[in-house]
Amino acid sequence: MNAAIMKEKLRIEVGQIARPVPGPTEVLIKVQCIGICGSDIHYYEHGRIGRYVVEEPLILGHEVAGTVAAVGTKVTNVKVGDRVAVEPGVPCGQCDYCKGGRYNLCPDVFFLATPPDNGAWADYIVMRSDVLFKLPDTMSFEEGALLEPLSVGYHAMNRANVKPSDKVFITGLGPIGLLAIQAAKLFGVREIYASDVVAFRREFALKMGATAVFNPLEDSIAEEIAKLTDNNGIDVVIESSGNRSSISSTVNVVKRGGRIVFVGLPPENEVPLNVEKIIDSELNIYGVFRYANTYAAAIQAYAKSGLDISKVITHQFDLLDINEALQLSRTQKDKAIKIMIYPKSD
Amino acid sequence: MNAAIMKEKLRIEVGQIARPVPGPTEVLIKVQCIGICGSDIHYYEHGRIGRYVVEEPLILGHEVAGTVAAVGTKVTNVKVGDRVAVEPGVPCGQCDYCKGGRYNLCPDVFFLATPPDNGAWADYIVMRSDVLFKLPDTMSFEEGALLEPLSVGYHAMNRANVKPSDKVFITGLGPIGLLAIQAAKLFGVREIYASDVVAFRREFALKMGATAVFNPLEDSIAEEIAKLTDNNGIDVVIESSGNRSSISSTVNVVKRGGRIVFVGLPPENEVPLNVEKIIDSELNIYGVFRYANTYAAAIQAYAKSGLDISKVITHQFDLLDINEALQLSRTQKDKAIKIMIYPKSD
Amino acid sequence: MNAAIMKEKLRIEVGQIARPVPGPTEVLIKVQCIGICGSDIHYYEHGRIGRYVVEEPLILGHEVAGTVAAVGTKVTNVKVGDRVAVEPGVPCGQCDYCKGGRYNLCPDVFFLATPPDNGAWADYIVMRSDVLFKLPDTMSFEEGALLEPLSVGYHAMNRANVKPSDKVFITGLGPIGLLAIQAAKLFGVREIYASDVVAFRREFALKMGATAVFNPLEDSIAEEIAKLTDNNGIDVVIESSGNRSSISSTVNVVKRGGRIVFVGLPPENEVPLNVEKIIDSELNIYGVFRYANTYAAAIQAYAKSGLDISKVITHQFDLLDINEALQLSRTQKDKAIKIMIYPKSD
Amino acid sequence: MNAAIMKEKLRIEVGQIARPVPGPTEVLIKVQCIGICGSDIHYYEHGRIGRYVVEEPLILGHEVAGTVAAVGTKVTNVKVGDRVAVEPGVPCGQCDYCKGGRYNLCPDVFFLATPPDNGAWADYIVMRSDVLFKLPDTMSFEEGALLEPLSVGYHAMNRANVKPSDKVFITGLGPIGLLAIQAAKLFGVREIYASDVVAFRREFALKMGATAVFNPLEDSIAEEIAKLTDNNGIDVVIESSGNRSSISSTVNVVKRGGRIVFVGLPPENEVPLNVEKIIDSELNIYGVFRYANTYAAAIQAYAKSGLDISKVITHQFDLLDINEALQLSRTQKDKAIKIMIYPKSD
Repeated sequence: MNAAIMKEKLRIEVGQIARPVPGPTEVLIKVQCIGICGSDIHYYEHGRIGRYVVEEPLILGHEVAGTVAAVGTKVTNVKVGDRVAVEPGVPCGQCDYCKGGRYNLCPDVFFLATPPDNGAWADYIVMRSDVLFKLPDTMSFEEGALLEPLSVGYHAMNRANVKPSDKVFITGLGPIGLLAIQAAKLFGVREIYASDVVAFRREFALKMGATAVFNPLEDSIAEEIAKLTDNNGIDVVIESSGNRSSISSTVNVVKRGGRIVFVGLPPENEVPLNVEKIIDSELNIYGVFRYANTYAAAIQAYAKSGLDISKVITHQFDLLDINEALQLSRTQKDKAIKIMIYPKSD
Repeated sequence: MNAAIMKEKLRIEVGQIARPVPGPTEVLIKVQCIGICGSDIHYYEHGRIGRYVVEEPLILGHEVAGTVAAVGTKVTNVKVGDRVAVEPGVPCGQCDYCKGGRYNLCPDVFFLATPPDNGAWADYIVMRSDVLFKLPDTMSFEEGALLEPLSVGYHAMNRANVKPSDKVFITGLGPIGLLAIQAAKLFGVREIYASDVVAFRREFALKMGATAVFNPLEDSIAEEIAKLTDNNGIDVVIESSGNRSSISSTVNVVKRGGRIVFVGLPPENEVPLNVEKIIDSELNIYGVFRYANTYAAAIQAYAKSGLDISKVITHQFDLLDINEALQLSRTQKDKAIKIMIYPKSD
Repeated sequence: MNAAIMKEKLRIEVGQIARPVPGPTEVLIKVQCIGICGSDIHYYEHGRIGRYVVEEPLILGHEVAGTVAAVGTKVTNVKVGDRVAVEPGVPCGQCDYCKGGRYNLCPDVFFLATPPDNGAWADYIVMRSDVLFKLPDTMSFEEGALLEPLSVGYHAMNRANVKPSDKVFITGLGPIGLLAIQAAKLFGVREIYASDVVAFRREFALKMGATAVFNPLEDSIAEEIAKLTDNNGIDVVIESSGNRSSISSTVNVVKRGGRIVFVGLPPENEVPLNVEKIIDSELNIYGVFRYANTYAAAIQAYAKSGLDISKVITHQFDLLDINEALQLSRTQKDKAIKIMIYPKSD
Repeated sequence: MNAAIMKEKLRIEVGQIARPVPGPTEVLIKVQCIGICGSDIHYYEHGRIGRYVVEEPLILGHEVAGTVAAVGTKVTNVKVGDRVAVEPGVPCGQCDYCKGGRYNLCPDVFFLATPPDNGAWADYIVMRSDVLFKLPDTMSFEEGALLEPLSVGYHAMNRANVKPSDKVFITGLGPIGLLAIQAAKLFGVREIYASDVVAFRREFALKMGATAVFNPLEDSIAEEIAKLTDNNGIDVVIESSGNRSSISSTVNVVKRGGRIVFVGLPPENEVPLNVEKIIDSELNIYGVFRYANTYAAAIQAYAKSGLDISKVITHQFDLLDINEALQLSRTQKDKAIKIMIYPKSD
């Protein structure tokens, strides 16, 4: 079967590898579509993300939906032909984090496209059956693949215990931020502010349901939000840009007793934060690392919501054209949001 | 009656003022003892703390216990002669924060010794009756006064939802940090690490029940704690030093999924924090501003605990000698922890 | 001014009483509309509800919206002419429950139309300013009055920490149950089952957004829900009928680890519950008594939701015709849901 | 090796069976001691508990501590010779309940001595390695075995989010109730009331740290507790008797806004509960089914607590004398609390 293999930094080649065979509790999935994620680009450009280093040829891609092609002897939750979304992390199920319900912190997790674990830019993958979630007829494969980035925002809502009465502000309007807008809408939030330096992305945010958008380079966001919220301020800030200035500014816009969620990784680890404000306003700050228990929940909340997360897909490519897709993704931040890859060759 | 009045920065004079008269829902309290708090010193030295500025002569002191001397016509919860601890904040009871159970964030709170509200370095004070809490016979006035700084640590335990199985690390061993050790013990915590640069304070921490203490200037705290905890790390860090380096280091010692509580105000507002770690380890960070709903709870938890918070009292002065007490407090960090003031003249 | 005064059981007369005068922190409100609640009917018929006994002539009515007619000298949150919803409970603000955020349990609360406190079937009422909530231009007075019964369902959602992925089952489809459907929708819930013995009410539930409805006298609800939910069962049951059989049946339809909320008061206090199931399935059960902190939240969640709670209003009467309205309400359960009263005479 | 095998109701024989062999992720444990639990007695007497039916010869016993005798090839958390407590439930790790942190609700759990799963009244057992917890040197094997019944009370504390300021009332003073007293003490609770009809057990409760004890057949418990708590009432009731009258009475002693935990299974499923009170007092009720995530936590909280849970052991028997032990357990409720079994023959 075909797979797009990253041989070294900045070099990906589509080649033939053996189709994997599922074990007794595993499932073979015919990949229907896979999104390109910022982390894929980052591995492609830098060969590492923090403590995860690409040391051997690696298949990238972890936003996947597909069709069940074969099941192991002990699999009961899906059958051949089922359309499924694939949660990319397979936790150990036995450590303290797994048993405590925070399996995203499992130190022994297998995670698609996180070295040394291969990803899903391929015709087929094999996964343990419990990470597969049947798609309702009303959801497309694309929506299934987008459950992955949607899950990050959905998990952010859970971490901050977002309520329908909260006013939410989302900074950074790449796919994660845009889908966090949708996640907020799933939680019943009615007032969603958003910011990004790129006009194209701000316009996209309005299409995704943002109440108002700001350009951090031009607007006095804290002041404008104070005006728009009758000086009440923001209940929950979701920081998904990873921009230092944006991270530092979160405390200026959140109200007393409010909550801040950090999602976007900053380029340098340390960022100056106003600790005096965190104390004086008695803020809560939550880090978000991937997600846990979001797939079934997001399908239930989303399927009949009337929302359309697939709006974030701006481009589509055959797996054979993966290099062209990567090039576009790296260079066209004012044109591309989510690029979807299709392994059509099989 | 006598009162110690701060006329201007670095000048406090004990003079005669009129004894206050309680309104219908208020109580006149004969002050038995009042602690000197770091914030009192700070107002004395700088004339301000953040947005609170001393603009007129001010009576300081807000860690108070006393005896009920007279009650307003509508007061039912205490009677003349009752020994009481005084919660220094009187919230409005009608704003969103008050109604939501976070009255410490009430914008209209009256708070002893926070300009322009006078404090309790005086023979008598008047307070609304609901902020008075009867002391059990087994608790001294000193313990009653110390409920105030104990409340900060107690509130930190509540904010971080500390459980008896948590390993706790407390940085900064002034009165707040030392009493946070006691608060942790009240919550059943068995493994309490602590750090301070002053040897005298580290020894005090051991007397207050710390499991082990560290000197941040000499010890590799993260390593040593890793060793002591079998590489499991700390569940909850309570940062009460306000030291920049200590604040920044909290993320190095806390385990994945752990919690950090910021209590100590840094001298400059902004402090560099490892946001990448906050995200990758999915940490929770909580600011603590004063406390709410701690007095009755702490009395219940403490009174029969066998602990003795009054150990933190290293010096005692007559109110008439307030300047001597302040001088000691400012200069003898290696000898003084908590100084207690007694208005004996009446 | 006019007021409808209940002189004794089953006898209400509209008469003239003095218009009340607001104190410094109070507001005079020109009542625009008031709903008739089941509790009003109950007082009218039985002269008591549980421990609340009507011993003197009483004005009923507590679902109110109106216009600010005059404000006390210290009132700042509203001004003359403002359109407001009135939260009927005025808590003391000083007891443990109030300070802990559960002011609905305040033993000293003033509550409209709960003896001995008079209600709002009158041209004007006076209320403390903090229980008034400005209505957005998009919300009618009727919607403002309906915030009261909506609040019960909204509070039920908060008590059970309802998430958008929860499957919810609501039993009893009077105004409380029907508005609980709307509350569930505000929280993003997509799958809402409902039951009532009256066909008219079941049809109403479908109009209000229920996914499917059942007749407990004819349908095997547990089985049908098992079928509809792929044997997953219900996450949260909201019991608002007060019917003994319905209360007992809640444990049969909820899934393992699920939550049950009791809202509807049964005619006899004791009801048989399957405690073995509560233990074996490790259920959570929550009582709901009125509500707390729901008005501002519900306005924020509802105003731009596209929902229309005023659909529950089936009849409208002038205050002068209050007896006719009561008669209808008592006898026409298959025609009347919510009856709205208008004091037009002033 | 020896094992005590229940051949049919009321017939247990000690016989020889093959020593089990651990798989790659499993551990062979030399059993050092095993407690007799009420559920063991119940299976022995009735051949079933609810939906669990003994259909083939079964080994009972699930409160176990032992020594690691051999480890599978992939086991890293324990080594031969380690002293360990054995959590009797081995959850699947892949279902929604497991992934959500409530693995005690896992439908596919293996649980010692729950038909058809054999238990630990034997010289050796094999368990998956993650359910083994190393005992500190300061804890005996007996204490290790008692972590199982302690876990039930510990889980009850977690379910009800018990705080050190809570007043707790524990009904039913068999091993579960008595160890729940100890669990409450681990959580810092200072005021613990307890009740049982057997004087011997009430005296035991006082030895275990109860503040005061009551006889439900003679005492007016609600009144007496009102007196002892200054009319404040109980914050949390832990019902562990399973007695119908005791279950029904829980609502009479708990304060407004309080919490009730049901632990003890009633002989008949349905029990009358005052639903009006649950609503009017806005109570929370929690079922407790076994426990989750308690072993490591309880070891951490208990090991240095100064408490001694082994006080509940009133009798000790060789495994060969299991029938004598069962006979004692069934007949001597006024003499026996916990009976510990030792497989000494190996």
